[in-house]
Amino acid sequence: MKANDRQTAEGILFTDQYQLTMGQVYFRMGLHEREAQFDHFFRNYPDYGMHKAGYCINAGLEWVLDWMEEAHFREKDIAYLRSQKNRTGTRVFDDDYLDWLKHHFSFEGIQMMAIPEGRVVHPHVPLTIVRGPLIVAQILETALLNQLNFQTLIATKAARIRESGHAQLMLEFGLRRAHERGANAGARAALIGGADFTSNVGISHVLGFAPKGTHAHSMIQAFLALGQGEVEAFRAYAEIYPDDCVLLVDTIDTLNSGVPNAITVFEELRRKGHEPVGVRLDSGDLAYLSIQVAKMLDAANFPDTVIVLSNNLDELVLWQIITQIEEEAPRYGVDAQRLLRRLVYGVGTRLITSNGASSLGGVYKLVALNDGGQWVPAIKISETPDKTPNPGDKRVWRIYDRRGKATADLISLAGETPEKMKEIILRNPLNYAKRRTLNAGEVSEVEPLLSEILRDGRRVAEFPDIPVLRERRQADVARLDPGIRRLMNPHIYHVSITQKLWDVKEQLIREMKGNNHAEGA
Amino acid sequence: MKANDRQTAEGILFTDQYQLTMGQVYFRMGLHEREAQFDHFFRNYPDYGMHKAGYCINAGLEWVLDWMEEAHFREKDIAYLRSQKNRTGTRVFDDDYLDWLKHHFSFEGIQMMAIPEGRVVHPHVPLTIVRGPLIVAQILETALLNQLNFQTLIATKAARIRESGHAQLMLEFGLRRAHERGANAGARAALIGGADFTSNVGISHVLGFAPKGTHAHSMIQAFLALGQGEVEAFRAYAEIYPDDCVLLVDTIDTLNSGVPNAITVFEELRRKGHEPVGVRLDSGDLAYLSIQVAKMLDAANFPDTVIVLSNNLDELVLWQIITQIEEEAPRYGVDAQRLLRRLVYGVGTRLITSNGASSLGGVYKLVALNDGGQWVPAIKISETPDKTPNPGDKRVWRIYDRRGKATADLISLAGETPEKMKEIILRNPLNYAKRRTLNAGEVSEVEPLLSEILRDGRRVAEFPDIPVLRERRQADVARLDPGIRRLMNPHIYHVSITQKLWDVKEQLIREMKGNNHAEGA
Repeated sequence: MKANDRQTAEGILFTDQYQLTMGQVYFRMGLHEREAQFDHFFRNYPDYGMHKAGYCINAGLEWVLDWMEEAHFREKDIAYLRSQKNRTGTRVFDDDYLDWLKHHFSFEGIQMMAIPEGRVVHPHVPLTIVRGPLIVAQILETALLNQLNFQTLIATKAARIRESGHAQLMLEFGLRRAHERGANAGARAALIGGADFTSNVGISHVLGFAPKGTHAHSMIQAFLALGQGEVEAFRAYAEIYPDDCVLLVDTIDTLNSGVPNAITVFEELRRKGHEPVGVRLDSGDLAYLSIQVAKMLDAANFPDTVIVLSNNLDELVLWQIITQIEEEAPRYGVDAQRLLRRLVYGVGTRLITSNGASSLGGVYKLVALNDGGQWVPAIKISETPDKTPNPGDKRVWRIYDRRGKATADLISLAGETPEKMKEIILRNPLNYAKRRTLNAGEVSEVEPLLSEILRDGRRVAEFPDIPVLRERRQADVARLDPGIRRLMNPHIYHVSITQKLWDVKEQLIREMKGNNHAEGA
Repeated sequence: MKANDRQTAEGILFTDQYQLTMGQVYFRMGLHEREAQFDHFFRNYPDYGMHKAGYCINAGLEWVLDWMEEAHFREKDIAYLRSQKNRTGTRVFDDDYLDWLKHHFSFEGIQMMAIPEGRVVHPHVPLTIVRGPLIVAQILETALLNQLNFQTLIATKAARIRESGHAQLMLEFGLRRAHERGANAGARAALIGGADFTSNVGISHVLGFAPKGTHAHSMIQAFLALGQGEVEAFRAYAEIYPDDCVLLVDTIDTLNSGVPNAITVFEELRRKGHEPVGVRLDSGDLAYLSIQVAKMLDAANFPDTVIVLSNNLDELVLWQIITQIEEEAPRYGVDAQRLLRRLVYGVGTRLITSNGASSLGGVYKLVALNDGGQWVPAIKISETPDKTPNPGDKRVWRIYDRRGKATADLISLAGETPEKMKEIILRNPLNYAKRRTLNAGEVSEVEPLLSEILRDGRRVAEFPDIPVLRERRQADVARLDPGIRRLMNPHIYHVSITQKLWDVKEQLIREMKGNNHAEGA
């Protein structure tokens, strides 16, 4: 795609057709400027097959706002919409509607609250609340979901891999297998969720990180093809990067060629006053090989070099590698814990594509509409009760127990103040029989999770750099019960609603079931 | 990300750091302008869990070329690289190297051959062959793989879904769950691979398609919140789109509210001289509901309306739906085949993220290097023989049997002419004992698959629009044996090499194993 076309495909028309056709209905009915409220939330944690996540890491919001600041109906976009024809050859969009889009459509009418990026988040909780003219809030849906779904998905996967890797240094390496330009959003989310650095040069620059990388097999191959050996290739690399020297040792034979050659070059480096950084293993049995490689590097007096592992790593593979090292290392006289501390994880494909759960099903649902100054809650009844969203203007509270661990997220109506309640009743959102009551003595903190983000389309919140988002993530993850953090079969975190919200929802369902039978029936 | 930053993150720095660090090694060694040849290929079909693909659809090349035409080292990119520091605070990249990148780096030195987009392709076959100055061909790797891996992945998934859906109309609906801006490349690939249209407005415009879509649940909800009913919402929609009226019938209750209300509005439309298009089902048991809905629409004298199905469809779900309809429809007095012909499939998340196999492992391997005018084949020996790439400059031939079906792809050295051979020997690339011999009477056609794409960086091939790429796909799929096309456990298509290529590879492996022991060993 040419740059010019990218502007078209990534601007305001980065949306689904039905947003625009519905927009015309609203316009024709005079509803387009009616204030509406939509909630963004997801219903299920990513399920990677046998191991479902127990929490998510919220990410992507700042880029949504960046998109909103640039996206608008250009003359070119309007001309395209004008050219759209329906089946009978007449125009899909009329001039008056297109004029309105061109001259009046603006995200300046949008109010937004959201849970900040980097925070731990859970299903059914409104992560983003959008209020604004119906047509504007509606047209925002697709681009908002596209960006928030993906970054939250990847930040979550990164957090899991980081936990599994015991917080050793973790590098994002997935650009070649990522979903095209989504790679950049994915790298950002990985940096929020758990990666320390990425190999992606451009996005590192944009976000203020140093990109990481060493060399590929092709460099060794090029030397070989020219009649030289692996050691000459290593030497050439070490000469140019004497203080950042990580050598890829598996092009020919890791233990019989790569590591011995690397040690030769490391010794030469040391004689010149430089300390090598380490080696990278990209194939074979990474657990077994890292034990042997550690042993060789120790014996050669390079005990402080790192061993970078790559090749289809994810949280389960890391778990397996670590377990195997703990079991096998002692047999070879290698200290397992010391070895684990010198490992660095290069995580590519399975992180950047969220292998096993390649999407997050975040949705954006109309929850209220302003009717003559009154906010009317809106509902959609679904065959599955789980899919019936919570109506109305709501707030979210995280309740911490006496240990300081997060024990539940509570969704209330706006105006409720659970932090002032003597006892907090937590209702299961689906089952009236299930409830928990917490008295004040059991609660150490009731934290409001939603912050005001946009007031009349202007940012009113701080958008700190990635390191701050990481601190949020680390603090939140540390306040999760270990059962929730667990990789396999985590405990289900409680997401509850207040009695008042329960009552509003129940009444709406009753009214809707009663009043909206078919005319034709 | 701001537009300005996107230029940085999507331009020449849309690459892995090691491409640039290796580049400096080549530069320092005087190897940077040495002619090199890289092959792009994949080793395995996407494996979606229980059902691995039996073929792939090649896609993405034109967008790689678009990227190459725009990407170059801007002053800003050079300034960033200049600012990179290593661990000890000295610069990673020296001025002379950066000057070379700025003034001499150019894709004009690239020669490229490739299998055209839309063609059926198989593992280990070079899909793209890049020849050019070592540093330029090396730096191209990441962006090339990023784009070709993803579009081929999605085109393949689309082809499977289309086959499973018996080529009924298929719409791509996945923008909200796609991997951010990768959505656009994904939509293009889906259109090549099997989707007729997409809901994505911007990319439809860029590619010359009419975007498709109706309305969402939120439109019904908005009317309900304002005290009106589903039928009023349908009526408002039908009024504005009388000739494109598809109504979403599952907001309240599909069979008791949605469909009766839709029929009411369809009758009103007909009285005004318009024929409705159909209804959409987005939840519940889609097989059962479509039978009941078909029955109701037939009874109301709307037998020609379509039924659009959506909600997590993929090739297996479609298979299940179709099977269930074939079994259940007769019991309700509905003609299953007629019902199947009126279905339209809206396929979202599972297509645009290639659910079950979220990446394609395409690689880009150095296969030859020019040494004083002589091309020297390059090899990398891997612990797994399957991962040892075929060395040297090669060509690919598709061999059709007497029925006109593709029976094997044959990889030869450049200069070999299998189309002129009296008998063709097909060697299994891994097992010397396995071979097939075809005599001329058994072969109806030997087709060269690689075309010249770039000569000195200039396009020398035609890049037709999507409809032509689809015709290629349809023709190729039709020439596959039904066993290869099968959804579950397909036959393995034969990819073979010639005796000459076998000999070159074997000799290189022998030499490498003999000559490249470690100096330190």
